[in-house]
Amino acid sequence: MERPLADRPHHDGSPLYVSTQTPSLGDTVRVRVRVPRIWGDAVVVRTRSNPDREPRFDDAVVVHEDAAAVWWEAALQVENPVHGYRFLLERADGATHWLTSAGLSHTETRDVDDFRIVCFAAPPEWGRASVMYQVFPDRFARSAAADERTPPEWAEPAAWSDPVQLEGESRWRQFYGGDLAGVQEHLDHLADLGIDLLYLTPVFPAGSNHRYDAHSFEVVDPLLGGDGALIRLVEAAHERGIRVIGDLTTNHSGDTHEWFRAAYGNPEAPESAFYLWLDQGQTSYVSWMGVPSLPKFNWQAEELRRRFIEGLDSVVAKWLKPPYSLDGWRVDVANMTGRWRDEDLNEAVRRAVRHTMVQVSHDTLLIGESTNDAASDFPGDAWHGAMTYANFTRPLWNWLSVPGSPAGGGLGMTLGRTSDYTGIDFYDAHREFAAAFPWRTRLTTMNALDTHDTPRFLTSAREGAVPVAFGLAVSMPGIPVVWAGDEFGLTARDGEESRTPIPWDRAGDPTVAATIALYRRLIALKRAHPALNGGGIRWLAVADDAVAFVRETAEECVLVVAARAITVLDLGDELPDDAELVASEAPGDVAWEAGRVAVPGPTFAAWRLPGVALPAWEAGDVPAA
Amino acid sequence: MERPLADRPHHDGSPLYVSTQTPSLGDTVRVRVRVPRIWGDAVVVRTRSNPDREPRFDDAVVVHEDAAAVWWEAALQVENPVHGYRFLLERADGATHWLTSAGLSHTETRDVDDFRIVCFAAPPEWGRASVMYQVFPDRFARSAAADERTPPEWAEPAAWSDPVQLEGESRWRQFYGGDLAGVQEHLDHLADLGIDLLYLTPVFPAGSNHRYDAHSFEVVDPLLGGDGALIRLVEAAHERGIRVIGDLTTNHSGDTHEWFRAAYGNPEAPESAFYLWLDQGQTSYVSWMGVPSLPKFNWQAEELRRRFIEGLDSVVAKWLKPPYSLDGWRVDVANMTGRWRDEDLNEAVRRAVRHTMVQVSHDTLLIGESTNDAASDFPGDAWHGAMTYANFTRPLWNWLSVPGSPAGGGLGMTLGRTSDYTGIDFYDAHREFAAAFPWRTRLTTMNALDTHDTPRFLTSAREGAVPVAFGLAVSMPGIPVVWAGDEFGLTARDGEESRTPIPWDRAGDPTVAATIALYRRLIALKRAHPALNGGGIRWLAVADDAVAFVRETAEECVLVVAARAITVLDLGDELPDDAELVASEAPGDVAWEAGRVAVPGPTFAAWRLPGVALPAWEAGDVPAA
Repeated sequence: MERPLADRPHHDGSPLYVSTQTPSLGDTVRVRVRVPRIWGDAVVVRTRSNPDREPRFDDAVVVHEDAAAVWWEAALQVENPVHGYRFLLERADGATHWLTSAGLSHTETRDVDDFRIVCFAAPPEWGRASVMYQVFPDRFARSAAADERTPPEWAEPAAWSDPVQLEGESRWRQFYGGDLAGVQEHLDHLADLGIDLLYLTPVFPAGSNHRYDAHSFEVVDPLLGGDGALIRLVEAAHERGIRVIGDLTTNHSGDTHEWFRAAYGNPEAPESAFYLWLDQGQTSYVSWMGVPSLPKFNWQAEELRRRFIEGLDSVVAKWLKPPYSLDGWRVDVANMTGRWRDEDLNEAVRRAVRHTMVQVSHDTLLIGESTNDAASDFPGDAWHGAMTYANFTRPLWNWLSVPGSPAGGGLGMTLGRTSDYTGIDFYDAHREFAAAFPWRTRLTTMNALDTHDTPRFLTSAREGAVPVAFGLAVSMPGIPVVWAGDEFGLTARDGEESRTPIPWDRAGDPTVAATIALYRRLIALKRAHPALNGGGIRWLAVADDAVAFVRETAEECVLVVAARAITVLDLGDELPDDAELVASEAPGDVAWEAGRVAVPGPTFAAWRLPGVALPAWEAGDVPAA
Repeated sequence: MERPLADRPHHDGSPLYVSTQTPSLGDTVRVRVRVPRIWGDAVVVRTRSNPDREPRFDDAVVVHEDAAAVWWEAALQVENPVHGYRFLLERADGATHWLTSAGLSHTETRDVDDFRIVCFAAPPEWGRASVMYQVFPDRFARSAAADERTPPEWAEPAAWSDPVQLEGESRWRQFYGGDLAGVQEHLDHLADLGIDLLYLTPVFPAGSNHRYDAHSFEVVDPLLGGDGALIRLVEAAHERGIRVIGDLTTNHSGDTHEWFRAAYGNPEAPESAFYLWLDQGQTSYVSWMGVPSLPKFNWQAEELRRRFIEGLDSVVAKWLKPPYSLDGWRVDVANMTGRWRDEDLNEAVRRAVRHTMVQVSHDTLLIGESTNDAASDFPGDAWHGAMTYANFTRPLWNWLSVPGSPAGGGLGMTLGRTSDYTGIDFYDAHREFAAAFPWRTRLTTMNALDTHDTPRFLTSAREGAVPVAFGLAVSMPGIPVVWAGDEFGLTARDGEESRTPIPWDRAGDPTVAATIALYRRLIALKRAHPALNGGGIRWLAVADDAVAFVRETAEECVLVVAARAITVLDLGDELPDDAELVASEAPGDVAWEAGRVAVPGPTFAAWRLPGVALPAWEAGDVPAA
């Protein structure tokens, strides 16, 4: 089965299609739509906006024609901070179609499918060009200084080569003693891979190896080397052009947190209002998923907001300021934050967090965890991007893993195992969730093969699928993620085993070296091609075993083919004979002839083509008629 | 083309599938899914809930099996006021499918497609069984008392038989002088049709014939007979079992409103904060769609909320209390209310309106106008149902009108004319928008062929399509609407002409009498069959020229076939030989043989079948395993 897609009108939020990436409320923004000649001649093109949820139509006019397509342009006045719009196209044969972020439809579809212009403060420019490396401090690397430290009472010390405990309390007690100096010692490894963004899971003192149950947000865990170790790590990272973001839990603290201990059983405490108590004596309380060690915050509490998220003296601000100078935050279970029964303070909390970050610096990144459908919380008002599995990770696993492979835990897979997606299903599932994000949000959402909460992708991958999967991570819109250890070829059946310590002694093994080189090549591809960062994405064809798309800017176009098996894919006339092959991860030669690409097995390949030459955006307020 | 649908698993919010229609937060609610044997054997069925936006799975067990289907049941704990859920089904052949309100999908879909359990105060029981008649007072009927009244200065008096002015200022100045006593004089006509809900467009004094530009919300327009006329009309209606709802503009008032006149140019006035001024001197202001006579309210103003929508002394409450005793409100441009630029107070305003109504009586109905995609404002927290065109009216016109017919204005049709939908498109477009509503909201959303803002359906209808269209209005979930004059066979090319005075003198014409009889028969069908009120809807098949579904309860099942042309439709074995034909609006005999229905032309037909005998809902908290 093959579904051609190049014959459809296209629009996305990229600079080829929208006149500004940083609109303000009240601005006139111009939008363009590409109508390929093979679709037929459009005779009427108009936009439908939805200001104050009341439809408004604006006419488009032709601004460019070439052999392949006709480009139409309309002007929209941005009336709300999230301005939804879609295109209506009438063809010469009388057929009418809606073009929305979900694709082309003859029948009308819901407003949730609208394209979106977003007027909130823009994410930092560097976000969309970043390549992220995720580190779980207890398991990444252990400096010599770690030998001097006494493990805490709760800990079950482990040697670096011990197997990870997968069951019972040992899961969170097992303590390998990785520290921040250890991370610093391996920054050259990150730089060598091409990484420019380091994401550290929590570094606050806590009662477990994962540290999501913080004792305090005021100091770095002495077991990690304390505040000084963080300051030195961030400085050393910045020297190598690597930014660093931390991890905050706005949903809960640990039950050993200083605020919780003050409030527990003590209704008179100033911190009493910080939590959701179920009894007057304050010994029974709401917690994350019913886990008693993770009491849930009550965001009605003004003093909690003041200490934690509001203003330059808050926790959120403190760690972004010198001397710590973190470049942003990843926020844990962002989706649950502020929600309980009939109360929903999520929007207020996330906006307050971002407002405080901007007080320190606009140039900071905020990523919210929302592992399922993240769309409704991600209109671009606060979280710049999502750590989510619905739009990329799960579709990828379902297409590129052996069907029925274990895929439970944090991955959120339906039946705890992979499904049997075709490439068409991969595309459908990806588009379903990606379409729900504003364009800017897509560009800073994590393209993770796996994380510290999931099994590792390699474990159940089809043979040869890793280059295909990571190739898609670097070439689709989003921030590609290397979960530390993937480049060492680690496998893991669940989120516990996924936290296996990095086997630094195996870096020189030929297989490991080859894997590291693969990651390095693919990361370099993203960094070399601006089209892979902010460029639009236009899908050309999807089939059972292969998908193809272009990323496009005015300057260049990168054509990507990703296949899980030997395939011939019809791409029409999108690939000229003089295209430059810029990536070819395949078990043999990738052939191109007469509008078809033939791949010899699992393949990630990319070609560089000329950019799209369109007229400059008019300076005035309305398109020339 | 025909698309069979009876072979798919099914769930909806009706009592066959959900254990309570009035859940409370924290309740355990049981849900069932019907898996037809022809779909295959399900081996795993579970629900996915989404409390605090975090997925949770619950297993279902088999509770009933018959020749046609296997029924599974799961228990859900309702953790938020809107509890989203969906089903995951794995078949013996290993295939997995999601069942959501949008249908069956192999790939994962967004949370907006979840089924929804809603814990807000329930709509009045009578809402879902109502049949609505819409009256525009200036054009419905003129009592003798009207002759005694002097038309206002703005008015251009017209004789009852004068044609409606379609252009220029005369559109709103032309004044026919219909009044509330006139409505009262024709209540027997409504009762004869089977109407039990009368919706009056505004009755407050205003500066136009439509009265959406109120001078005041404190009195009934003396030109309509004043407060006394309303009191008498409501009393007389109630005596006939007809409820009456009024029409409020929460988005704006008239520029002649007492509040606006007090505030205009007068920043010291107590009403100063009621509007959105664009200059310090308060002479420039925000208005509905830029129309200066309709200044937009500023819902930040506490005193506005107090006078208009909050508490027993407010406008909202006053008209629901004796002696006026209205049974509810329809609210004009509910979608725009409280929205302007980056402010969105819509939820707060609509909830305050409903809260006040409940203070007077739970037994009142609240319908919000939102002509396009209404879903996001209709989670069931305030508006019980929508006056909208996206889920029923536009799909109906696009299927049952001559393609390319004029269909502009308030209907919101894409290019101002009808499209060329098949019955499959009708189903797709209907489902797309209906699926976005909670079940309770669907039951009290208006199924209108047309309204005072649209052309009349008959004008461009295919030959014989009116019984098909109104048949669908009475048999699909929702409140069927007779826009006064439809039963007289009036036509209208736009929303102005649609307001043509009712030609009472033609009630005896054979064609008119036949149309009135048609409406009477179809209304009687809805009133005679409880399944057509609260029963579930399960689609059997859709094709280019016909659609078929059943409405089902434990007591009865009504099978509906609607066709626009001669067709044979395959219904499998849903129609037993002894089914009772309870409606047949067709140009000949409707034939049934060997699983197929053959209709001789445009047809609306319905059969009564036995209900669905399932085990009673368990009293306990979890289903028996």
